[in-house]
Amino acid sequence: MFTFNKKPRDITNRAPERELGFGRIITTTSRMMNPDGRFNVERQRTSVWDNTYFNLVTMPWWQFFILTLAAFVSMNCLFALLYCAIGVEHLSGIEPDGFLHNFTQAYFFSSQTLTTVGYGHISPGGLAANMAASFESFLGLLSFALVSGLLYGRFSRQRAKIVFSENLLVSPYKDGRGLMFRMGNARRSEIIEAEVQVIMAINQMSAEGVLERKFFALDLELNRISFFSLSWTIVHPLGESSPVSGFSPEELQDANAEFMVLVKGMDEANHQLVHARHSYVGEEIIWNARFLPIIGRNDKGIAQVFIPKVGAYEVLN
Amino acid sequence: MFTFNKKPRDITNRAPERELGFGRIITTTSRMMNPDGRFNVERQRTSVWDNTYFNLVTMPWWQFFILTLAAFVSMNCLFALLYCAIGVEHLSGIEPDGFLHNFTQAYFFSSQTLTTVGYGHISPGGLAANMAASFESFLGLLSFALVSGLLYGRFSRQRAKIVFSENLLVSPYKDGRGLMFRMGNARRSEIIEAEVQVIMAINQMSAEGVLERKFFALDLELNRISFFSLSWTIVHPLGESSPVSGFSPEELQDANAEFMVLVKGMDEANHQLVHARHSYVGEEIIWNARFLPIIGRNDKGIAQVFIPKVGAYEVLN
Amino acid sequence: MFTFNKKPRDITNRAPERELGFGRIITTTSRMMNPDGRFNVERQRTSVWDNTYFNLVTMPWWQFFILTLAAFVSMNCLFALLYCAIGVEHLSGIEPDGFLHNFTQAYFFSSQTLTTVGYGHISPGGLAANMAASFESFLGLLSFALVSGLLYGRFSRQRAKIVFSENLLVSPYKDGRGLMFRMGNARRSEIIEAEVQVIMAINQMSAEGVLERKFFALDLELNRISFFSLSWTIVHPLGESSPVSGFSPEELQDANAEFMVLVKGMDEANHQLVHARHSYVGEEIIWNARFLPIIGRNDKGIAQVFIPKVGAYEVLN
Amino acid sequence: MFTFNKKPRDITNRAPERELGFGRIITTTSRMMNPDGRFNVERQRTSVWDNTYFNLVTMPWWQFFILTLAAFVSMNCLFALLYCAIGVEHLSGIEPDGFLHNFTQAYFFSSQTLTTVGYGHISPGGLAANMAASFESFLGLLSFALVSGLLYGRFSRQRAKIVFSENLLVSPYKDGRGLMFRMGNARRSEIIEAEVQVIMAINQMSAEGVLERKFFALDLELNRISFFSLSWTIVHPLGESSPVSGFSPEELQDANAEFMVLVKGMDEANHQLVHARHSYVGEEIIWNARFLPIIGRNDKGIAQVFIPKVGAYEVLN
Repeated sequence: MFTFNKKPRDITNRAPERELGFGRIITTTSRMMNPDGRFNVERQRTSVWDNTYFNLVTMPWWQFFILTLAAFVSMNCLFALLYCAIGVEHLSGIEPDGFLHNFTQAYFFSSQTLTTVGYGHISPGGLAANMAASFESFLGLLSFALVSGLLYGRFSRQRAKIVFSENLLVSPYKDGRGLMFRMGNARRSEIIEAEVQVIMAINQMSAEGVLERKFFALDLELNRISFFSLSWTIVHPLGESSPVSGFSPEELQDANAEFMVLVKGMDEANHQLVHARHSYVGEEIIWNARFLPIIGRNDKGIAQVFIPKVGAYEVLN
Repeated sequence: MFTFNKKPRDITNRAPERELGFGRIITTTSRMMNPDGRFNVERQRTSVWDNTYFNLVTMPWWQFFILTLAAFVSMNCLFALLYCAIGVEHLSGIEPDGFLHNFTQAYFFSSQTLTTVGYGHISPGGLAANMAASFESFLGLLSFALVSGLLYGRFSRQRAKIVFSENLLVSPYKDGRGLMFRMGNARRSEIIEAEVQVIMAINQMSAEGVLERKFFALDLELNRISFFSLSWTIVHPLGESSPVSGFSPEELQDANAEFMVLVKGMDEANHQLVHARHSYVGEEIIWNARFLPIIGRNDKGIAQVFIPKVGAYEVLN
Repeated sequence: MFTFNKKPRDITNRAPERELGFGRIITTTSRMMNPDGRFNVERQRTSVWDNTYFNLVTMPWWQFFILTLAAFVSMNCLFALLYCAIGVEHLSGIEPDGFLHNFTQAYFFSSQTLTTVGYGHISPGGLAANMAASFESFLGLLSFALVSGLLYGRFSRQRAKIVFSENLLVSPYKDGRGLMFRMGNARRSEIIEAEVQVIMAINQMSAEGVLERKFFALDLELNRISFFSLSWTIVHPLGESSPVSGFSPEELQDANAEFMVLVKGMDEANHQLVHARHSYVGEEIIWNARFLPIIGRNDKGIAQVFIPKVGAYEVLN
Repeated sequence: MFTFNKKPRDITNRAPERELGFGRIITTTSRMMNPDGRFNVERQRTSVWDNTYFNLVTMPWWQFFILTLAAFVSMNCLFALLYCAIGVEHLSGIEPDGFLHNFTQAYFFSSQTLTTVGYGHISPGGLAANMAASFESFLGLLSFALVSGLLYGRFSRQRAKIVFSENLLVSPYKDGRGLMFRMGNARRSEIIEAEVQVIMAINQMSAEGVLERKFFALDLELNRISFFSLSWTIVHPLGESSPVSGFSPEELQDANAEFMVLVKGMDEANHQLVHARHSYVGEEIIWNARFLPIIGRNDKGIAQVFIPKVGAYEVLN
């Protein structure tokens, strides 16, 4: 069995910027992490194929569908041109006519070959047409095998959907105040052994008078739960030891403060590791507000959670 | 290599309700966990697609088959209507007649196209019919690629089947008594590094006189084995330190006691993590009974286990 | 990142029989583990489907092929019978004749439908034949999607192939002797972070004079390597502290001694956990012998290993 | 949840050659690890199938395509010969003629059957031809199911692409010098919890005057980062405790020094463990040089990395 972490990862002895794999990056003017958790970096690639698989399994479903359809149409067009070049008179069942007619008929024959539907009212005759058709049907099956593989690749990436509140709140917490955000689990499957970490990045003047980007790992009231079923409010107590305490709302914005949230866990649906990330910047902090409750109980006494309201809050005065 | 836990996870310093990801949930009248291990919660979803994949890979096989068949029939019906709209006279091989006849013939043509069987005694003529047929055959292959992906998704979830005894028994154990249940491994594959944890949830009056739901992690005689091949009786000794000791059978039921069992391990068949859960409530406790042995030895001297009898017990007097 | 074990798992404080998940099993007359590592147990199953997936992905390839072919032929036969029942006169292209002729023709039509080849020289006419054919082609695609899923299931189980020497040797080791066996990695892919554990099971008279099965975890010279590329000789030093030391060759056999080897690691080829097991019994021990070297160097100075000779030894005198 | 390593793996108490799974290998004249990370060993295989799956999923894409196409053509040829043997007069639609004509026509029929395109202008008649065609279409679907499985196997191996600098540099580092190399992450997906280890192998004279191959684990300035997004320069400080310090450039080459780099991490794209390896030999060390910066900032203030320049350096004087 895999071990289970007993304590939160001790990051006190580690430079928190290490956590993000950023080296000696100096002050930035843009966010380092996009709200959706992707790092805000630009990579000069080594080859056009570098990200092909990654892109194919991460693009939205409609985009994947369009792309597949476009590939299908393109391949048909190419083969239709090839059949026209060979001569459509070698496709028995087609009456040769003008190019457009020939191309259209050849296109339909190509489509019937690529998908292996092969009605047979058009069929190849002669060596060249037969060879082209044989190769096309081979290619067709191979392509759909490829699509099968990609589809499973997409499915196996299906992962926990963690919904984050849009804002960080500064709320009353115990005797003082806490910096809080809330996450909801939008799927029916549990996230097991969920663990969260919050890193603040901020521009600060160093002792030598140089403006530097500093990183702080924020202490959390609770950074780990065994089952993340419903919602979870993460609290960083704004005590004296908090690196956030000294700042006014304006100062946080001026210093280009960014709060990066890293969530880890295991998705019960496919038993795969889950890594969700989120980022809040200074202007997304609401001072002196409180999250509205989203866990209720239905009339059968069963716990109920309103995921779409995960960011709902009320301002206090 | 993944590390292996030397000791059971130390949960003494952790609030056991954290283990379940339940926050400050107060007294419940229904069970918190269903007997099959699903948490008894209701989630307001954010989108209708939230649980699509999860549902498709977890639904029973017969349901998956019916759903696939229904999708197949529906797609055929839709395309049959489309062919009727285009005009069945564009499908050579069909004699146009009344709508029902046309629809039926178009349905069969559609089915032959979607599955790419394409006998060819019916074949598309004209631009519109050909384009519809081309798109349909594309869609057909795509759908079956999707089904391939889902089927493998279902297979890769194939997991250990742990059978739990229907009851918790209070049995003689060493000098005193123990709370026991038994699990059996119904598959031929071993569960490696199996680990179990039992949490009791119970309504209790707090010091301030408020009825609260309290959680206790129960100590177990043995909470971890390297190979779970046969059966395993989990024992919580009812000693003085046990939080169960103070209660009479009636009190446990009145306090809405619930015993949640969490099992972890690795399934040897597909090398995936296994998480099984079970829950017992007060009325499922049998006081003063003993499990009947289910491990025997066949006539060749080989150990034998009777999984269907995992819950068999005898009442003592 | 997954953690990596710094030290061998400490099993000194654990009863080694726990490692095997065997409870209070008393003396056995047969081996507890087969030489191929499967536990020698018999499980009363709860449903006929319990081991279906496990069997389908673990059976040998030729068996899987035969089974698939048999399923194909059976489905064709069933549908052929159905078409005969509907009446082969509804399959245009078939000349109805005697039953055998009809059945054969219907069988071929069925095969053309199930595989979606659909030449079309036989084609369905009439409602019933069309519906049957439509359903059959649907079933055909579904079945092959299922086979795709299973094939990938089989591939993803493709794992390290560890070859064990046929014998345990008692060989000279440092100043004394050691119990040794040798393993070879037959694949081109490395096994990463390989870890090995050896447990001896033996019948012993307890203090109360009862013959009991005792388990001992044997100390190993080295129980963990980072890359298992070539071969690895595992050594249990037969020092004073060894539980094997007291026994003569005959006594080990009389006491039904069994040495169970558990190997863990990660296969680089598919990044999956590997669990290999092997078992040696008393009569497989060769006393006073030595393994012949199998690692050499070819004429280009490259290390070379002769996996098929992993069990080669010479007897010393 | 998988645990996360708090500290780099402590290898000070372990013989570093253990890390590589090399036993008592004496001085080598060739490199032990190829620059691409494969160990430079030759394995005598036990069966021709030993590496089939491994080869099929690791060969380059064009090779995989050629192989699949070759298998397709071969199967068609074999079946074409079989149809010729049965007699092409049993394939209605073919006019029997000379062997070459018959074979070609039979080949095309075979191809239409294997891919299940089945136009039908050629169709089997008679028992033998029908049985062969039925079996071939079955085989065709099975083969393409197999290819689907393999394609997904290839996809699921899609992994982080770590680009290494071509050279090891001896560069100024703090008050002294350091041995450095640089890695870049060429993919858009992060490598999570990346960890690196460097082992030096070198021929050394032992106290007994025997030339032996010794292994040293080199201390690194930082051997672990949480997110490997951009580039990472690994530094071994050449302090007094460094085993490299005593050697001149020539001595390192004479002693056949080899620096083996082992990188571990988790690829975010498919949540799989990543193991990259690289090896540098003596002549690949550049003395007194410095890596040129490759992380910049584009005009929107976003961090930018030039992966193809990962090995760019300037010589100092």
